[in-house]
Amino acid sequence: MSKVTASSKITVLENVLRANDQVAQINRRRLTDAGVFTVNLIGAPGCGKTTLMERTLELTSRRWRTGVIAGDLATPRDAERLGQFTSSVIQVNTGRGCHLEAPQIAAALDHLELEALDLLVIENVGNLICPVAFDLGENAKVGVFSVTEGDDKAAKHPHLVAAASLLLLNKTDLEFSVSFQFDRFMEDVRRLNASVPLMRIAARAAQLTDWIKWLEQRVHSLEKMPCG
Amino acid sequence: MSKVTASSKITVLENVLRANDQVAQINRRRLTDAGVFTVNLIGAPGCGKTTLMERTLELTSRRWRTGVIAGDLATPRDAERLGQFTSSVIQVNTGRGCHLEAPQIAAALDHLELEALDLLVIENVGNLICPVAFDLGENAKVGVFSVTEGDDKAAKHPHLVAAASLLLLNKTDLEFSVSFQFDRFMEDVRRLNASVPLMRIAARAAQLTDWIKWLEQRVHSLEKMPCG
Repeated sequence: MSKVTASSKITVLENVLRANDQVAQINRRRLTDAGVFTVNLIGAPGCGKTTLMERTLELTSRRWRTGVIAGDLATPRDAERLGQFTSSVIQVNTGRGCHLEAPQIAAALDHLELEALDLLVIENVGNLICPVAFDLGENAKVGVFSVTEGDDKAAKHPHLVAAASLLLLNKTDLEFSVSFQFDRFMEDVRRLNASVPLMRIAARAAQLTDWIKWLEQRVHSLEKMPCG
Repeated sequence: MSKVTASSKITVLENVLRANDQVAQINRRRLTDAGVFTVNLIGAPGCGKTTLMERTLELTSRRWRTGVIAGDLATPRDAERLGQFTSSVIQVNTGRGCHLEAPQIAAALDHLELEALDLLVIENVGNLICPVAFDLGENAKVGVFSVTEGDDKAAKHPHLVAAASLLLLNKTDLEFSVSFQFDRFMEDVRRLNASVPLMRIAARAAQLTDWIKWLEQRVHSLEKMPCG
């Protein structure tokens, strides 16, 4: 009978991560060479990632060109929703896979005209845990929480908070319908990551000013970089 | 350099699942012999699993004795919350682990007086994907969705819907604050699982009548079983 020990599981995981990271570095080089700023958007199922992207595409389509890679276990629904706002959208269905991996992004990049893009957003599979460990070649991991999930979710997901370049707190238009204590949430965030910016947003209501500014600064800085 | 192929990953996963399932069978026998009905509660972060358990314990503490095993990456917060309602609560912190596995439950069972319990609820790590694959020794998997997550979450998580003995749709008291189309959600559920019961609940408001009845029937049926 086969036996799997803890150490053999850990070895395989390390090998998987190493293989992933090698491909992620190639992805990062391709994207940087093409002048594309790339975001890896990580949040729970239903935190509002797709609505955030709908409104973001709507608000910025005249200023820059955005592509989206949308990860989900099943259904092409996110790509169908986002396809109304950009022609550069790829759906990746992972089956039972709980996160996106760099080779899936490499395959998706083959279907995007990278030279035509300023920004690429990878909407990861809805999951606050597994996606954090897998580098996809992005410039920034952006963690998305929402007030309807409760104010304990930063403390319960320390690895995402520690790894994120930016945190978004979504659905703040529902804050008075739920018992969310912002101070408590913020205290946990600061304990885990002293410097990460946290922005309050309401994607449904298109209240996204700080997020759009944050993107604009980064898209703009890549545009100014010399080629090659 | 180590190389991990898809087939070696699959072999390890199969071995992990086989080793898990052997321990799950032992857990199941221990729980059945002690006359404990066991639920594996699976839902996204913030779907309301802990609030559901708080209200459930409050409503049923005079009728039967319930133990809870609470899974989370970090913090003892759920056990602290539930400890106000039952002395039989064990927190399992998984670190980076995205789901509970049967050996963790076996270790937790050693700390519970099983003969004194009628019901055991295992509150899995907040994740709609990975927990579905790991049998813990439960009698029933119960999937928890909430209206604030959106009406596409059943379609996007077909394995949970297919595996569940019961589905709960929580936060229905917020249904008119969000754009949740119940008919669309229900259509997806029925396509994936023709027979699973679906109950609308509002844990925060203690609107849990059908869920308590469902538990009562099962706790009661185990009580009537002869020992041995």
